[in-house]
Amino acid sequence: MTYCVAMKLDSGMIFLSDSRTNAGVDHIATFQKMYFFTKQDERVLVMMSAGNLATTQSIVSLLNARIKDAEYNILTVKSLYEAAEMVGQTMREVVARDAQGQQSQGVDFSCSLILGGQIRGEGMRLFNIYPQGNFIEATCDTPYFQIGESKYGKPILDRALRFNTSLEEALKCGLISFDSTMKSNLSVGLPLDMAVYRVDQFALHVRQRLYEDDGYLTNLRQQWSEGLKNLMASLPPPALNRLD
Amino acid sequence: MTYCVAMKLDSGMIFLSDSRTNAGVDHIATFQKMYFFTKQDERVLVMMSAGNLATTQSIVSLLNARIKDAEYNILTVKSLYEAAEMVGQTMREVVARDAQGQQSQGVDFSCSLILGGQIRGEGMRLFNIYPQGNFIEATCDTPYFQIGESKYGKPILDRALRFNTSLEEALKCGLISFDSTMKSNLSVGLPLDMAVYRVDQFALHVRQRLYEDDGYLTNLRQQWSEGLKNLMASLPPPALNRLD
Repeated sequence: MTYCVAMKLDSGMIFLSDSRTNAGVDHIATFQKMYFFTKQDERVLVMMSAGNLATTQSIVSLLNARIKDAEYNILTVKSLYEAAEMVGQTMREVVARDAQGQQSQGVDFSCSLILGGQIRGEGMRLFNIYPQGNFIEATCDTPYFQIGESKYGKPILDRALRFNTSLEEALKCGLISFDSTMKSNLSVGLPLDMAVYRVDQFALHVRQRLYEDDGYLTNLRQQWSEGLKNLMASLPPPALNRLD
Repeated sequence: MTYCVAMKLDSGMIFLSDSRTNAGVDHIATFQKMYFFTKQDERVLVMMSAGNLATTQSIVSLLNARIKDAEYNILTVKSLYEAAEMVGQTMREVVARDAQGQQSQGVDFSCSLILGGQIRGEGMRLFNIYPQGNFIEATCDTPYFQIGESKYGKPILDRALRFNTSLEEALKCGLISFDSTMKSNLSVGLPLDMAVYRVDQFALHVRQRLYEDDGYLTNLRQQWSEGLKNLMASLPPPALNRLD
């Protein structure tokens, strides 16, 4: 499985993805699921993927190949909306190619993508691209998207994340959401890829890979775990005899 | 949807279920999903259901009808294992009956059940009965089962619940697991049904329905929410400029 979260906030954007892929529990590998399409001082696009790895890698390969081969490509489109359209179309093309033929029986070729960033001339935008190639855009009311194994880590985002949350606090919240997911689902695992973009910078602010031994992440996970236990212990227990 | 949790602990068992059913968002109703089969001082069996409501209600109706009609019934079986076998068999029978005929196309008749309790002569036992009618039993290593919308509320159980957790603490943990689920999924809702059994009592210790206005639950949810926010705020923020 996979877990990816992207946030579009007042002051910037955050992208987080795990890197574990599995085809059965005896076939586990590390693959980056975060891709970048950037032109310094002009555009930053970040894409994250969940689902069939062959499909998502093909989409990225084609998008990259066409930067050289085609005039109208992901580095020349005028808006994030056009970029999302292009990615959705490329997704349909790859799935249509791979799903043909007899050997495709029973295989799920689909994938889900998150695409976000900023192109000079418009504000930051964030899209969630469905397996059908259509997409929705994040708004102030719902400032985040998740793809992959999203349920375990959703409650903490719903509780703590708002459009005006600072980037630092939002990143903390995102990392805790990953911690909850990794605790409950072995198929989501470290290292994490992380990218932070500050509004109107047209260059990534932070791009980093967090490994098992990352000091900040280790501390955060431990303090969160202990804090939760203490919080739980501090709440009054129910009176179990009240209906006896 | 539905969310049910059952725990088999050192000192007893806890059963929690929500009561919201929906067939589309414009068809929401309240149905109890917790059923009891008891013989004072001899056996306590608690069953909880998720999935097709027609199927689960039929299973319960048949089990109850056969208490009168059949010598070998859920109140005469010698062990919880036999009870689980009987429930699984009744499930197969109902699904086979309802899934026949042309009108069944595209309808999912399946359900999942949790069955637990104690019959004099053996210890407490807890079973998770799959839609196929087969089942697994809880052990000390995995002292809880969930059915229905289980993912949102799983991380807190994985963090805080152990076989030797006290009934009071475990119930608190279970209620917080429900809170997380209800925060993220509207199709799981109050009131909650709750049953607590203490080992070797052969009678329920607490059986209660918790409504929106329940003082303890309201307090717990509020304190948990505030505590989480405070905990999150107290953790050190990441240094976002460390890779600049």
